[in-house]
Amino acid sequence: MTRFALTVEFDGRSFMGWQRQDHGPSVQQAIEDAAFAVTGERTTVHAAGRTDAGVHATAMRAHVDIAKPITAFRLGEALNARLRPNPVAIVACEVVPDDWHARFSCLGRAYEYRIVNRRAPLTWEKGLAWQVAQPLDAAAMHDAAQLLVGRHDFTTFRSAHCQSASPVKSIDRLAVRREGDRIMVEAAARSFLHHQVRSMVGCLALVGLGRWSAADLRDALEAANRARLGLNAPPDGLFFMGARYPARPEAAA
Amino acid sequence: MTRFALTVEFDGRSFMGWQRQDHGPSVQQAIEDAAFAVTGERTTVHAAGRTDAGVHATAMRAHVDIAKPITAFRLGEALNARLRPNPVAIVACEVVPDDWHARFSCLGRAYEYRIVNRRAPLTWEKGLAWQVAQPLDAAAMHDAAQLLVGRHDFTTFRSAHCQSASPVKSIDRLAVRREGDRIMVEAAARSFLHHQVRSMVGCLALVGLGRWSAADLRDALEAANRARLGLNAPPDGLFFMGARYPARPEAAA
Repeated sequence: MTRFALTVEFDGRSFMGWQRQDHGPSVQQAIEDAAFAVTGERTTVHAAGRTDAGVHATAMRAHVDIAKPITAFRLGEALNARLRPNPVAIVACEVVPDDWHARFSCLGRAYEYRIVNRRAPLTWEKGLAWQVAQPLDAAAMHDAAQLLVGRHDFTTFRSAHCQSASPVKSIDRLAVRREGDRIMVEAAARSFLHHQVRSMVGCLALVGLGRWSAADLRDALEAANRARLGLNAPPDGLFFMGARYPARPEAAA
Repeated sequence: MTRFALTVEFDGRSFMGWQRQDHGPSVQQAIEDAAFAVTGERTTVHAAGRTDAGVHATAMRAHVDIAKPITAFRLGEALNARLRPNPVAIVACEVVPDDWHARFSCLGRAYEYRIVNRRAPLTWEKGLAWQVAQPLDAAAMHDAAQLLVGRHDFTTFRSAHCQSASPVKSIDRLAVRREGDRIMVEAAARSFLHHQVRSMVGCLALVGLGRWSAADLRDALEAANRARLGLNAPPDGLFFMGARYPARPEAAA
């Protein structure tokens, strides 16, 4: 048995989310089916995070155990060949030690949320960004975002379906910047609650629109009450950008 | 009659190109049909450039004459409402003088060509970039590109269907840069021949792959012979990025 770490890019518009489920296509199932086609083995693909329906990834990290002798290069190529025409791509594949776990070894996750701030509808970015027609004040959003950085009870920003044992999480970075008519929100933490990034972005957008003050955001956080959530941003603009792991002395290729 | 200048974004995957034609959907027709729905007037929309099937635009410039009294803001909003669900968006609309012509007043056009240089297939960028699996040397491409800058006979880089009176054009800028696994080619000129940007990018890719030297590129240019074209890049990666016009003393809104 060899453990392979995968770096996966996918277009969330085609899937019910990362996790395998009965009622629709998932990224996990697409990769597991491709692995079966390549190896004849029924395997489970474990990911750093479970993304929701409509959420994308540029660099989701995952791992899979394969018995068949195959190099990392050949496995990556073969998975990509079998994944077509699904919008899922294995952008990197490497051998890792048996105790390397995409989810449990992960030290940090990074997301990016993309807003297009203009009146005109989206064209090729439809489903790949959140269009907000009213002008957003990105500087005010960034300033307010700093209230969420650090260790807090994020109950307000947590889905009712969240399975995390605790609502307390530690946000390492939450940065908002404008690039022309685009507003990019970068979020980094060891881990996030279900819907946490979308809920934080939704409330920051209220601040950017002038409908919430920074104090309103602080009150919502301190209330630790989901009913105080101002707005949950749509999945469209959310991208899983990468995961961080302990450095390894030697990385086998 | 009021003349309105439009700035148009569109996803070329849905169209046979900019220009109205009998055998399939065009961006021009989509906008003209939307204008008819808004005003009841059958108008012609003139663009700064005619893009091919599969070519995109972030900021195509165009103009249209409307008799019905309507403000630029209302016209832009109404066109966008009627353009749905076509992937075409009017991102700006303004009143211009009657002698302002999107094509004939245009002083310069800018294109960007996007290459994703990796083995893995594209996911959400499918049709929005050219995937090149073998490693490209962007610095070599940029150096060779400088041979094409300036005034030359571009017969080698011109489609057999090109209707331009002369094959002589003057390239103001042709810059190649790498950003991670992306290679971006920026091209600017007063005007381009049919297929010129795609043909230049295709041959620069041969240089980047090491299959052509810079001298091969120079020889192909100097041959002024379409048969010497090395490669025509696919339309997927090509974006019309903007057009330049003479400054106007006052711009009416």
